[in-house]
Amino acid sequence: MSMTRQWVVAARPIGRALQAGDFQLETVSTGEPGPGEVLVETQYLSFDPAQKSWMENVASYMAPVEIGGLMPGSGGGRVIASASPDFAAGDLVIGRTGWREQAIVAGSELTRVPDGVSVTAALAVLGTTGRTAYLGLVNVGKPKAGDTLVISGAAGATGSVVGQLGKISGCRVIGIAGGPEKCAWLTEELGFDGAIDYKSEKVRARLRDLAPGGIDVFWDNVGGDILNDALGRLAVGARVVICGGISRYNFDARDPSMPAGPRNYFNVVFTGATIQGFLMPHYEAQYPTADARLLDWVRAGAIRYKEDMLAGFENAPLALMRLFEGGNFGKQMLRVA
Amino acid sequence: MSMTRQWVVAARPIGRALQAGDFQLETVSTGEPGPGEVLVETQYLSFDPAQKSWMENVASYMAPVEIGGLMPGSGGGRVIASASPDFAAGDLVIGRTGWREQAIVAGSELTRVPDGVSVTAALAVLGTTGRTAYLGLVNVGKPKAGDTLVISGAAGATGSVVGQLGKISGCRVIGIAGGPEKCAWLTEELGFDGAIDYKSEKVRARLRDLAPGGIDVFWDNVGGDILNDALGRLAVGARVVICGGISRYNFDARDPSMPAGPRNYFNVVFTGATIQGFLMPHYEAQYPTADARLLDWVRAGAIRYKEDMLAGFENAPLALMRLFEGGNFGKQMLRVA
Repeated sequence: MSMTRQWVVAARPIGRALQAGDFQLETVSTGEPGPGEVLVETQYLSFDPAQKSWMENVASYMAPVEIGGLMPGSGGGRVIASASPDFAAGDLVIGRTGWREQAIVAGSELTRVPDGVSVTAALAVLGTTGRTAYLGLVNVGKPKAGDTLVISGAAGATGSVVGQLGKISGCRVIGIAGGPEKCAWLTEELGFDGAIDYKSEKVRARLRDLAPGGIDVFWDNVGGDILNDALGRLAVGARVVICGGISRYNFDARDPSMPAGPRNYFNVVFTGATIQGFLMPHYEAQYPTADARLLDWVRAGAIRYKEDMLAGFENAPLALMRLFEGGNFGKQMLRVA
Repeated sequence: MSMTRQWVVAARPIGRALQAGDFQLETVSTGEPGPGEVLVETQYLSFDPAQKSWMENVASYMAPVEIGGLMPGSGGGRVIASASPDFAAGDLVIGRTGWREQAIVAGSELTRVPDGVSVTAALAVLGTTGRTAYLGLVNVGKPKAGDTLVISGAAGATGSVVGQLGKISGCRVIGIAGGPEKCAWLTEELGFDGAIDYKSEKVRARLRDLAPGGIDVFWDNVGGDILNDALGRLAVGARVVICGGISRYNFDARDPSMPAGPRNYFNVVFTGATIQGFLMPHYEAQYPTADARLLDWVRAGAIRYKEDMLAGFENAPLALMRLFEGGNFGKQMLRVA
């Protein structure tokens, strides 16, 4: 009987940072693919902050995650055996594998890696990350040529794609990121018009300098003071996309030490601005359009991306934790073997 | 030479409550209407919380208010003399008279009181108050039949109209107000489906009981804890209309004692909800439609309203101050003489 290793959820990290003991490594029987199913050798895992909220069972759009159950997540690799008419051994695929070295997944839940594209690109810039950036920007941010687009967490996986999509749309793009290396990457390699290093600069004052006419579109991955500063600089009719809130994820909503909400929310009254959350499943009908456009842009080099690769299946929890410490630079991935 | 009394702005009430010394009563020459202008005897004044922000010069959509300058505001009364082809002595009109017993106003800035309607109704439920409720609800709240609509400051001038418009749209309407008298008025006279007395009940728990499927549309006049509690109960795709924030108006935005922003703003990520400010001038093209519909509904008795009438021109500052103390019940008005 073939065996595989998997990570299961051992504890819910509610109101605190993730810790090693929240995960447990198990060895279990791999099993055989049933009708329509596919056995995948997971070569890469991809990490998103939302995975912490899945462990907390606060994301209503996800099936509940049980204690002792498989840690959910996206992965990609090679098909070993297939009982699905759509896949054959040797195919490269991505999907919701969970944190397993070998995963049995319904064929209907898998996507083939496009020709000429790496498994990791398919997982990230052409996967959930790119879809989030494209669908959120088009549907919620609604950029127009000449708009000033400001992004927090701009050097992150999603933020960096949002900024490049903004440039394609003819926006002036300002990124907020932590440290000179990330800021230089934004302006020198990705073509951002400006960058603000929140670790060494006053965000509010710099926004005044760099967005003198106000912010037309603000894409937030961070929350806290940075969101508040941006809300203080909105232009009339501005659109604020709430995509994430990395400053909040280690707090329980009822915890008094939770960062306060943005006082400047009230500026929407003076600007008629909109603050809207991005909820991916609302835009499912647009997935094929998003995927096709992203593939074209990536192939043409119009969208560039960076991967931060850890190695070794045993390091999966560490890879997820890095997201909450600003430790990664580029999309956090893990090479399984 | 004919003389008139007027109130001028003596100090800006930034970061604190209004006080009597912020206003000064003067006697000045009435003047004569120039070409196109009209001389109006102000019979009634109408009061809105926004007038405090006008005195602070923080409302970008308003011309700056100078210290020593006329206190701006809406009033209505009878035309005494007219140099405008559109009005004649004896006509009843409303407009931006400012706080003056006799006002010279451009004819183009005045509106005739419709037949069979009182000056005070024209000023409030058929004026800015009704327009705010109608245009904000239609364009930002976007109610659908069967939606649950929750309103803070529900017994106020705007909130009470919003709720009745919600009933006309087929919504389930819940009002949040202060005290049993206001709550009883909402449910027994205006047909609201439920009311929450924030002074004696736990808003969060009551919202859970009264809106078990979540809030589809939240209309906020208050801010603070009530807004936060409502954001914690949003349904998927909810629309939040920020119309006012009576809990905030006595604080400077930089004042550490300013109520924090709503922590639960982040729920927009899990619901795809929208938080949008209502900026009246954006909807100017719809004013005629709004005015005509409101007039029909008021004449038909489908929209009811309450006026809280003070008397005596010398009490104008007091009338405005009452809005910030929850002292008024119904639209705050003043009978000038």
